[in-house]
Amino acid sequence: MGRVTERRRVIRIRDGAVSTRPDTLVAEEPLEIRLGGKPLAITMRTPGDDFALAAGFLVSEGVLASADELANIVYCAGATADGENTYNVVDVRLADGVPVPDITLERNVYTTSSCGLCGKASLDAVRTTTRFPLETSAADPVRIEPATLAALPDRLRAAQRVFERTGGLHAAALFTPDGELLDIREDVGRHNAVDKIVGRALQQGKLPLSSSVLMVSGRASFELVQKAVMAGIPLLAAVSAPSSLAVDLAAETGLTLVGFLRGSSMNIYAGEHRIALPAGAAAETD
Amino acid sequence: MGRVTERRRVIRIRDGAVSTRPDTLVAEEPLEIRLGGKPLAITMRTPGDDFALAAGFLVSEGVLASADELANIVYCAGATADGENTYNVVDVRLADGVPVPDITLERNVYTTSSCGLCGKASLDAVRTTTRFPLETSAADPVRIEPATLAALPDRLRAAQRVFERTGGLHAAALFTPDGELLDIREDVGRHNAVDKIVGRALQQGKLPLSSSVLMVSGRASFELVQKAVMAGIPLLAAVSAPSSLAVDLAAETGLTLVGFLRGSSMNIYAGEHRIALPAGAAAETD
Repeated sequence: MGRVTERRRVIRIRDGAVSTRPDTLVAEEPLEIRLGGKPLAITMRTPGDDFALAAGFLVSEGVLASADELANIVYCAGATADGENTYNVVDVRLADGVPVPDITLERNVYTTSSCGLCGKASLDAVRTTTRFPLETSAADPVRIEPATLAALPDRLRAAQRVFERTGGLHAAALFTPDGELLDIREDVGRHNAVDKIVGRALQQGKLPLSSSVLMVSGRASFELVQKAVMAGIPLLAAVSAPSSLAVDLAAETGLTLVGFLRGSSMNIYAGEHRIALPAGAAAETD
Repeated sequence: MGRVTERRRVIRIRDGAVSTRPDTLVAEEPLEIRLGGKPLAITMRTPGDDFALAAGFLVSEGVLASADELANIVYCAGATADGENTYNVVDVRLADGVPVPDITLERNVYTTSSCGLCGKASLDAVRTTTRFPLETSAADPVRIEPATLAALPDRLRAAQRVFERTGGLHAAALFTPDGELLDIREDVGRHNAVDKIVGRALQQGKLPLSSSVLMVSGRASFELVQKAVMAGIPLLAAVSAPSSLAVDLAAETGLTLVGFLRGSSMNIYAGEHRIALPAGAAAETD
């Protein structure tokens, strides 16, 4: 418990000055919710208040409506191969006589590709599954100027047509390493906007997207990093913060992950070998 | 197709002036993705580019990596009781010889309570399921001053402790109708933050939350409206825009839905009987 935030090393660029320091990130880990021992749902969440999260989820599903319908909630041990408790699996038991409604996964589940019961398993699954492994060394031909990255948010916003009218859409856009816009999709779900970008590229025979930069509005979650990696995209840039698991997955797979891309400022969380930093610029300063 | 936006009537409050006009909202509808006829996932998405969305989802899942592995994608007819095509179900067929990996729902699915294959079915499901029906008439004792609502975003932000350090968290907060903070939770997922609020209330024997106002950072999706309704919360306020399906569900269930709550401005999308508007203020002006 208490893993609400985690620390990671980050390279900061502010007004052309480069520094390296620790950064505080929000923790993201999967939680599996079981009902009477039967797996019901997996959600990517920030650890903490896990029993409340499970209880509230069951209120939303119409299973629970009062405290006396709830017998207890426990963390399940043995959720990993070596039997350790990951604190990422909870089991809810209803009080005697409370009917277990017919909640089939088919009816209730929501898509995303997030999986695994602990962060480590999730990372391993993606790394071993991708058919387009990224180059993790400086031998990668993709190299991007910070000034090029800094220009992307304005281009993304300029190309967002529906957002202008509704204020209610996320966007994902694909750029060349020189900052030329290749494609942009908008959707209520950021993960859908990315799927639409990747799906169009597949339909056009353009996978892997090895010479592309993916830019998203908002934050960078584990799921968005996974989608970039699976499509062979070497660089993901986000307007806002990444989660801890997003940074871990980027580091393990060789993805360049840029966050807080605003004005001429940005944070580089992983894969700095693709960013054209001034020589010797990223020395430890903190 | 082409349902990227929809129009709904909205009551606007700007600097104390009240007007009623049509507003453009982003469309949100469920999409079921099937693989070889077998249901795989349901996502809430903005209609359009649905085949690309399905293809991209399967790239993320490691099923597809090139166009020649894909045979075709079609909309399924007969997804509703009367056999009409909702354009909300797609079926993906792989090329001959392409292995269908063992994608079990258990491994891949992500939680949320969104369900149903068309917006209408989703609305009906929530309306008939909730154990705490909301009062849809002016007889509801909950009545809130616009000035009280206007003060909530600052209080939400002031109480967000982790966001200050990471910039990466959504928040949900529960207030009294007088604007007193009752609870606040932060999470990488807005739906998790709401589940944690509702789950704590259940554990404390406080359901239904009939005299409470729920405020969320960011947008108001169908899913968040559903969670509020299931917990008996009469008013949901969001900093940003609602989706079309969120507004429809609020209107059907009697929930008061407020969006774009910023400074002294706000939009009321449904349930205005709980907002203390000046008498005769909301006459049609557009």
